[in-house]
Amino acid sequence: MKKLSLMALCASTAFSMSASGNSDLDIANKIRAEGFYNSEVMHTLQYLTDNIGPRLSGSPQMKEANEWTLKQLESWGLKNAYLDPFEFGRGWTHSAASIDLISPRKVSFHGIPVAWTPGTNGDVTAEVIMFEASSIEDLKKYKGKLRGKILMMGEGRTIGEPQRTIFKRHESSDLGKMKEFPVNRGPSHRSDRHPHYHETSKQRYLFNKALNKFLKEEGAVAAVYRSWRQGGLVGIWGKSHQVGNTFPIPAMVIEAEQYNLINRLMDDGDNPKITMNVKAKFHDEDHNAYNTIAEIPGTSENPKVVMLGGHLDSWHASDGAVDNGAGVAVVMEAVRILKALDIKPKNTIRIALWSGEEQGLYGSRAYVEEHFATRPKPTDKDEAALPSYLWKSPGWPIQPKSDYEDFSVYFNMDNGSGRFRGIYTEGNVAVKPIFGGWFSPYSDLSTGTITNRSTGGTDHESFDDVGLPGFQFIQDPLDYSSRLHHTHIDSFDHVLEDDMKQASVLMAAFVYQAAMRDDVLPRKPMPQGPSKLQKEQMQLKSDKERRKRERDALRALEAQKLIEK
Amino acid sequence: MKKLSLMALCASTAFSMSASGNSDLDIANKIRAEGFYNSEVMHTLQYLTDNIGPRLSGSPQMKEANEWTLKQLESWGLKNAYLDPFEFGRGWTHSAASIDLISPRKVSFHGIPVAWTPGTNGDVTAEVIMFEASSIEDLKKYKGKLRGKILMMGEGRTIGEPQRTIFKRHESSDLGKMKEFPVNRGPSHRSDRHPHYHETSKQRYLFNKALNKFLKEEGAVAAVYRSWRQGGLVGIWGKSHQVGNTFPIPAMVIEAEQYNLINRLMDDGDNPKITMNVKAKFHDEDHNAYNTIAEIPGTSENPKVVMLGGHLDSWHASDGAVDNGAGVAVVMEAVRILKALDIKPKNTIRIALWSGEEQGLYGSRAYVEEHFATRPKPTDKDEAALPSYLWKSPGWPIQPKSDYEDFSVYFNMDNGSGRFRGIYTEGNVAVKPIFGGWFSPYSDLSTGTITNRSTGGTDHESFDDVGLPGFQFIQDPLDYSSRLHHTHIDSFDHVLEDDMKQASVLMAAFVYQAAMRDDVLPRKPMPQGPSKLQKEQMQLKSDKERRKRERDALRALEAQKLIEK
Repeated sequence: MKKLSLMALCASTAFSMSASGNSDLDIANKIRAEGFYNSEVMHTLQYLTDNIGPRLSGSPQMKEANEWTLKQLESWGLKNAYLDPFEFGRGWTHSAASIDLISPRKVSFHGIPVAWTPGTNGDVTAEVIMFEASSIEDLKKYKGKLRGKILMMGEGRTIGEPQRTIFKRHESSDLGKMKEFPVNRGPSHRSDRHPHYHETSKQRYLFNKALNKFLKEEGAVAAVYRSWRQGGLVGIWGKSHQVGNTFPIPAMVIEAEQYNLINRLMDDGDNPKITMNVKAKFHDEDHNAYNTIAEIPGTSENPKVVMLGGHLDSWHASDGAVDNGAGVAVVMEAVRILKALDIKPKNTIRIALWSGEEQGLYGSRAYVEEHFATRPKPTDKDEAALPSYLWKSPGWPIQPKSDYEDFSVYFNMDNGSGRFRGIYTEGNVAVKPIFGGWFSPYSDLSTGTITNRSTGGTDHESFDDVGLPGFQFIQDPLDYSSRLHHTHIDSFDHVLEDDMKQASVLMAAFVYQAAMRDDVLPRKPMPQGPSKLQKEQMQLKSDKERRKRERDALRALEAQKLIEK
Repeated sequence: MKKLSLMALCASTAFSMSASGNSDLDIANKIRAEGFYNSEVMHTLQYLTDNIGPRLSGSPQMKEANEWTLKQLESWGLKNAYLDPFEFGRGWTHSAASIDLISPRKVSFHGIPVAWTPGTNGDVTAEVIMFEASSIEDLKKYKGKLRGKILMMGEGRTIGEPQRTIFKRHESSDLGKMKEFPVNRGPSHRSDRHPHYHETSKQRYLFNKALNKFLKEEGAVAAVYRSWRQGGLVGIWGKSHQVGNTFPIPAMVIEAEQYNLINRLMDDGDNPKITMNVKAKFHDEDHNAYNTIAEIPGTSENPKVVMLGGHLDSWHASDGAVDNGAGVAVVMEAVRILKALDIKPKNTIRIALWSGEEQGLYGSRAYVEEHFATRPKPTDKDEAALPSYLWKSPGWPIQPKSDYEDFSVYFNMDNGSGRFRGIYTEGNVAVKPIFGGWFSPYSDLSTGTITNRSTGGTDHESFDDVGLPGFQFIQDPLDYSSRLHHTHIDSFDHVLEDDMKQASVLMAAFVYQAAMRDDVLPRKPMPQGPSKLQKEQMQLKSDKERRKRERDALRALEAQKLIEK
C-alpha cells in the first residue's frame, strides 16, 4: 500500500514537472540520452590520436588536427568556423630515432628526441662526458673538453622505491578537504601575485642562449637527457621553438634506468660509447600556429559569449590522448550534443581548440589579447626585448577591448580523462550558488563539489589573468600524473570511455546553462596588480631565498675544498 | 629502579649467554656485522647486471657470467669450483633491433626481439595481417594468404584501468593468512600430483612444430607480438631453443599500447605497414649450458651436503637484476660472509648458480639427475621421443643415487630483491621447529613466518620433486610481479640495497645452521607418484574440462553461423 502510494506520488511529480515545462530537467534528460547512448566522444578521440597522432605546436600534424577539427565542427552544424593564426615560431617533427650503447657492451636504448633539436644526419658515434652546468661560470670548466663528445646532461639519480599507487579516484575525504579555502595563498588572481619566479626564468633563458653558443663553438656532437620519470617511462619536453634560438646539437631523452646505467659505467671507468641516429626536420614555411574556433550563434538580440575549449596541441612522445585529446574530444562532444538537440541558445556558444599550450598558453593568450583585453608592454627596454612570457610582470592597468563586457565565461578541460567531480571557482564566490544549481540534475553522476580554490597550468588562466571568468573542473586523477602526463604512453588505450561520456554530458550541461542566461556570469574584482604591501612582502621572500641559495653555494664550495685537501 | 633492574637483568643474561659459548648468538652477531657493514652484495649485483648484462641461457654473456662468478667464488676462498655442463640447445643473442610504423603515419615503436628468432638481414617492410591460430585446423584458413606479410600474432585487447598498487610489502595479515594450510591443494610433492596439463603442453608443442613449417612454406616475413604487460613495459619470452625446432621468421614483442594502435588502424581499413630490423645471431659452437658450482668443504668425517643457489640465467630484455641477479648476489654474499668469518662447517656448503631456469629448470634438473636421483624414461615410444619436460608424468619409482642419503637441504632465492619475511616448508612439517629456532636471533629483521604451503616455479622444485628438502623464502613482493618480472626494466636501479643485505644475512644464517648439524634435515615421505584414486579424480576433472571446451567451441560456431546468416 505504502509502496503503491509512493509510486503514484513519484509519477505525478514527474508528470507535473514535465508538464510545468521545467526545461532544466527536460534538457538534462536529453543531454544525458544523447551523451550516453549516441556518443561520438571516443570516435573523435580515436581519430585525433590514432590517425593524426602527436600534435606538436607548429607541426604539420597539428595543422592537420586544426583542419580536421574544423571540418568536424562544421559537419555538426557549427558556424563561423576558422583557423585563428598567431605568431609561434618554428615547426618541428621527427620521423625516426635510435640510441644504442655500443661499448663496453651493446644495448638498444629506448629514447625519444627532445623537441626542436636537430637530427643527426646519419649515425653519430662518440664517447660520453658528464656535463653539469647551470651558470655561465660553470661553462668555463668545460672549455676545450667537449669536442666530438656526447654530453650526459647531469648526474643520474637513485631511483629507490617507486610510488605505491598509480591509479586513484578522489575519495569523499579528498573532495571535502578541497572545499576549505587556503587564505594564505594570496589574491585570487594569479596576476595579482608578484611573479618573482620570473627572475629565475629570465636567468635560465639567458643561460640557455649562452649554452647554445658554447656547445656549438666547443663542437659537442649530441646530448642525452635522463627521463624525469622512472619505470621505463620516457617523459619528454622541448627546447626553444623560437626562431634564432634553436638548440645546436641533437638531443634525446632516454629511460632513467638506462641513463643511470651509463652513469655507473662512467663512474667505474668503463668509458661508454654511444651511437645516436635521429631523423628530425624543422618546418619554417610558416611560423604561425593556429587555434580552431567555431560557434553556435546566439539567438538573443544582444548575445553574450560563452566559451569552452581545451588545447589541441600535444607533446610528440605519444599520441597526446589524455593530454589533451581527452579534453578536445569532450568539448567537441559537448557542442555536438547541443547541436544534435537543436537547441537555440540565447548566447553564442564558442568552442576554441588551442595551440601552443604546452609551451606556455600561447594560443589562448594570443586569443584573449586579440579579443578581450591587452596590457601595456614593459617600459624597461631590456625586458621588452625578451619573449613576453619572461616579462617580470604583466603591465598595468588591464585595457579591456569592446568584447570584454559581453564575455560571460570560459570552461576548459585539460587534466586527463578522469570524470568531473566538481569545479574550481578560482576564488569567484559569486558563481558558487549558480554552479550548485547546474550540478543538481546530475547528482547521480557527480558529487558536484565546488571549491573556491584555484587550479593552474592551463588555458583558463589566460582568461582569469585579465579578470574574465575561466574555469576548470575537478577531475578524478586516475593515472594522469603518475605515469601518463608527457610520457611515451599517452595513448588511446589509457582514456576511460565512461569517464569521457560523463564529462561530455556535464560540459554540455554547463555550457547550455550559461548560454541560456540573460546576463554574463558574475566576475571577481578587476585585477589591479600587486599592492605595495604585497610587492614588499614578495621582495622580502625573494631576497631571503636568494641569500639562502648563496649560503648553500658557499657551504658546498667549502665542503668541496675540505674533500680536495 | 624498575628500569635499572631490568637493564641489569638484560646485561647479565647477554653476558652469561656469551660466556656460556652460545655459538648461535655469537655467530649471529658476526654474520650481521659482516653482512651489514662489509657488504659486497651490491657490487656483485652491479658487475653481473651493468657489466655483463643479460644472461640468456646458452649465450656468450651467460658463459661470461659463469666464468666471472667462478672466479669470484674462488677469490673468496671457495674450493672444488667448476662449470657444470648440461645439454641445452642453441645459444642466441641480439645486438640491435628496431620496429617502426611507416604507414598510415610514422611512429618509432619500442620493441624487443623474441629470443631464439632469426634476424632480418636489413630492413624488412611489409603490410601486416592478423594471424590467430592455435590448432592445425586454424592454419588451413591462412593457406596462401601470408606471403610477404608481417603477422600480427593475435587480436589486441582493451587495457582499461590499471592495477592500482605497484609496490607492496607483506602486511602481518598477509603473513597470517599464509600460515593456514590449504588441504585441498593435493599432496605436498608436486610430482605426486597428476600433471594432466602436460596433455595441453604436448598439443602446443606439436602445434608449434606444425606452425614453424607452415610459416616457412607460406613465406611470412616476420611476426609481431603484443607485450603481455601494459603501461609501456615490454614483457618478453622466447621461442624454442632446441636444435631443429627454431621459429622460422624474425619476431618482436612491442608495447601493448602500440600493438593495439596497429590493431585499431587495421580495423579501420588503414592498411598499416611496418619496417622491422633485427640483428640477431645463433651460437651453435656449443650446445651445452653451464651451472657454476663451488664449495666450502665440510670438516666432519662424513660431511653431509648443504646447498644454496639461484638461477644465474636471465631473459634478454634488460639486465636480469631482480630476476635473478638479486638471488645470485645474495647466495654469493652468503658464502662470502661465511668465508670472511672463516667458519669451519661440519657439512659441505655447496653453492650452485643454475642456467636454463627460465626455459624450465633445465640446469637444476640436470644437476639433481646427475648427482642425486634419476627416474625411468617413458615406456611409450612416442612419448619418449618428446623433450623430457613434455613427458606425461615422471617415471616411477624414483631411483636414488649414492649421494642421495647424505644430501641435507637446498635453499633457493628467486623472487626479486624483497627481504625475507619467512620460509615455505613445502609441506615438510618436521623442519618447522628447526627453522623457528634459526629465525630467532633475527626476529628484529624478519617476522620469521613459517608456512607449510608450497611455492613453485623455480629451482628448489628440482630437489623437492625427488623427495629432497628444497626451500624458498617468503619475500616481500615489492614491484617484482607488478612491473619488473621479465620486462625491459629489470635493471640494477630496481633492486633495494637494504633488502638485499637482510636476505644475505638470513641466507648465511640458515646455511650456517644447516652446515653445523650432525645430521641431514628431516624429509617428507618419498614421493610415490599419484595413487589410483588421485589418477581417477584427475582423469574425471580432465574429461570434464575437455567436454566443456568442446561445448564452448560448438556454441561459438553456432553463434558465428547466426551472424553470417
